[in-house]
Amino acid sequence: MNNKIINEFSERLRQFAADRDWEKFHSPKNISMALSVEVAEIVEHFQWLTEQQSRELDNDKKGEVSQELADAFIYLVRLADQLDIDLLAAADQKLQINEAKYPADRVRGSSKKYTQYK
Amino acid sequence: MNNKIINEFSERLRQFAADRDWEKFHSPKNISMALSVEVAEIVEHFQWLTEQQSRELDNDKKGEVSQELADAFIYLVRLADQLDIDLLAAADQKLQINEAKYPADRVRGSSKKYTQYK
Amino acid sequence: MNNKIINEFSERLRQFAADRDWEKFHSPKNISMALSVEVAEIVEHFQWLTEQQSRELDNDKKGEVSQELADAFIYLVRLADQLDIDLLAAADQKLQINEAKYPADRVRGSSKKYTQYK
Amino acid sequence: MNNKIINEFSERLRQFAADRDWEKFHSPKNISMALSVEVAEIVEHFQWLTEQQSRELDNDKKGEVSQELADAFIYLVRLADQLDIDLLAAADQKLQINEAKYPADRVRGSSKKYTQYK
Repeated sequence: MNNKIINEFSERLRQFAADRDWEKFHSPKNISMALSVEVAEIVEHFQWLTEQQSRELDNDKKGEVSQELADAFIYLVRLADQLDIDLLAAADQKLQINEAKYPADRVRGSSKKYTQYK
Repeated sequence: MNNKIINEFSERLRQFAADRDWEKFHSPKNISMALSVEVAEIVEHFQWLTEQQSRELDNDKKGEVSQELADAFIYLVRLADQLDIDLLAAADQKLQINEAKYPADRVRGSSKKYTQYK
Repeated sequence: MNNKIINEFSERLRQFAADRDWEKFHSPKNISMALSVEVAEIVEHFQWLTEQQSRELDNDKKGEVSQELADAFIYLVRLADQLDIDLLAAADQKLQINEAKYPADRVRGSSKKYTQYK
Repeated sequence: MNNKIINEFSERLRQFAADRDWEKFHSPKNISMALSVEVAEIVEHFQWLTEQQSRELDNDKKGEVSQELADAFIYLVRLADQLDIDLLAAADQKLQINEAKYPADRVRGSSKKYTQYK
């Protein structure tokens, strides 16, 4: 996969941290914590909604969730960059593994199979 | 930002779910939970490591972490797609906000400022 | 509140770590990560269930969830102990705050009020 | 173990929800999400601290963390109550399992063993 966009974004994040002398805080351990905190802020938007309500956010709510997704994306890209992991290649590979592991004609519509899916 | 790669990946995830009749499980509420579970699997790799050790993973460990990053990326892209949120545009915008909010010459090297950064 | 039971349990956890020379791993930072990982293992059990299904676990599933709750409890008590925080007193105080903050006759049955509850 | 204190606290939480007609929001699925959000607020306090700093919180910070621990405890007790799980009995049993699984004389001081500990 062509990683140009992700690479450029990683470079901006690297510059952002360097300009502020914040690399010292950006150990993978710390970034993994920050990522989990941002993801919890996504979860917080959905915790008391029904599944149906979560499919029908109004625009204000969607704007708020959008900012939390952005934060999660920023830390995820930053973490991959620091570990020298090619995020898109890893995702591509993982999806291929899942496609092989869950043949459509065998698991279709089965929640039982699905709940065992990870 | 050009979202072609993310768009194509979103489309593959959409197809993956459709082929298995799994859209019904993929409410934003549920996906946010799955995302948080995958991110915890990243955190699990780092929980007992020192910050320094987290910067020096061996190749086996890095391969394992890579797969967890992939899972988190997959769910993050899927969640954005279901909410009709442009993930890269949101991330670009959020980074610009952060750049304005934390002027390099005022926060440089300051852990105090940094710990207030969110 | 009488903390005798929690105190005794904290003491057992202290002994457990001391006997294994594991205190060095048990910084509050690390324990907070371990706690979040255990809680994600609780979430994992519920991520693809409907709310109704989550209210009707069979005995096997309940046994599994029970072990994850135990792990979360262990780390929560351990974290409080290391920070010298009286967990039950803090919980009692917080519940009193919530009782005052959300007068029953004003918020009753209101999901709008509820979703603003934190 | 004598659960009197936990039982009384569970009863107060039950009354708190009933008085506000909030049981409908308190499916185990939703409570597991709320628990994970509260735990992330604990993690947030520690994400940029060194392990050493996390052991030396000042009183202001400790007061803030104390409130987050209280929130996590409240949801953990509420979740156990709704699932009809005896939290202290489960924790006692789990600790006995861990004591047997990690014999002190075999794992002492070994970070390798420890990092495999779960």
